Amino acid sequence: MHQIDLHMEKDIFEGNTRLAEANARHLKAHGVRAFDLLGAIGSGKTALIEKMIPILSARGIRGGAIAGDVYGDDDFQRIVRTGIPAYNANTGKECHLDAHLVEHGLHHLPLDDIDILFIENVGNMVCPTDFQLGAEKRIIVISSTEGDDVVNKHPMMFRSGDIAVINKVDLAPLIGSDLDRMEADIRRYNPMMPIFRTNLKTGEGSEELLDAILA
Amino acid sequence: MHQIDLHMEKDIFEGNTRLAEANARHLKAHGVRAFDLLGAIGSGKTALIEKMIPILSARGIRGGAIAGDVYGDDDFQRIVRTGIPAYNANTGKECHLDAHLVEHGLHHLPLDDIDILFIENVGNMVCPTDFQLGAEKRIIVISSTEGDDVVNKHPMMFRSGDIAVINKVDLAPLIGSDLDRMEADIRRYNPMMPIFRTNLKTGEGSEELLDAILA
Repeated sequence: MHQIDLHMEKDIFEGNTRLAEANARHLKAHGVRAFDLLGAIGSGKTALIEKMIPILSARGIRGGAIAGDVYGDDDFQRIVRTGIPAYNANTGKECHLDAHLVEHGLHHLPLDDIDILFIENVGNMVCPTDFQLGAEKRIIVISSTEGDDVVNKHPMMFRSGDIAVINKVDLAPLIGSDLDRMEADIRRYNPMMPIFRTNLKTGEGSEELLDAILA
Repeated sequence: MHQIDLHMEKDIFEGNTRLAEANARHLKAHGVRAFDLLGAIGSGKTALIEKMIPILSARGIRGGAIAGDVYGDDDFQRIVRTGIPAYNANTGKECHLDAHLVEHGLHHLPLDDIDILFIENVGNMVCPTDFQLGAEKRIIVISSTEGDDVVNKHPMMFRSGDIAVINKVDLAPLIGSDLDRMEADIRRYNPMMPIFRTNLKTGEGSEELLDAILA
């Protein structure tokens, strides 16, 4: 975040947390379980939604999504093509979704027709960490192409997360990324975090990941 | 950036711009040309420095660097191994370098022994855009692995930049990224921006890129 007056920052976080709690109650009242997806641009957050929707559907579970981006609707359009209800949340200049933007999204979605809601945050590994949105779990998606030092550069993100996804594992040998180093770094910051190695282009690891999300 | 009081935000930006201008004067007084590197985690900002230093050295030009990260010294250690003077700027929680952090860095570097200073920002495509640091040009580094919609998601970054680098071009076919789309999107936001396609692992495109940086 930017360097701002600490008292004001505390007020912003407290206000956001209250709204996030209201979102959680709103979701629960409609029987919706929500999951927050965090990670850098191109890590595979949208691909995760694309892969999970048909698996959910085959299990008789109805999906929905909020696509968060600074600008544009590239991710939103990909999600719309999966056939689920979706809302495009553009932040304008902000580097993260906040509970207020998500509240808007909830009012635009048919919550009674949704069982599982994915909330895809802005592609950024720093700012989203501080802002709870009202989701049940945080799924942190990283890609082997980001370099195997990516975890060590973002301890707060992994401390705040519930499930870790190391994606694009097929490209690790081409990049020279050591997946074991990535896992070891995650364990150092969050020893109990379940870690999944996936290729979300092919779907490798998707079923196991979805089981952990729904657990 | 986070949603904060607009008046305060204006004060922060104006204060930062004054410090950036002071940094620019400080650099000029020591005969140093500085270049800001912006881009996501893993786009290749550190790799760019690693590739440029030997080429600069062969041309009799002395390099230096400031490595900006939220946490840790992974990038800093890679830069140190190139043999140039370097300073590790950890932001703690902040998502971007600001002119004040760079000012600190300048006081820790032997500026009279440096001709070209690379200032590597935190890996993030949103927040660094707003903060001038005192550098001569902004080099925006993106990777084909981030997906070919990465430019369209970050128009402000490309509007604010001077040189665009599309890196890891060898991986584009594996990811299914359309490099022509990326270039077309850059041209839409910044028609005059020079664009280079590189593979900074092998050095492909490095000499041409350096010529443009020094132009």
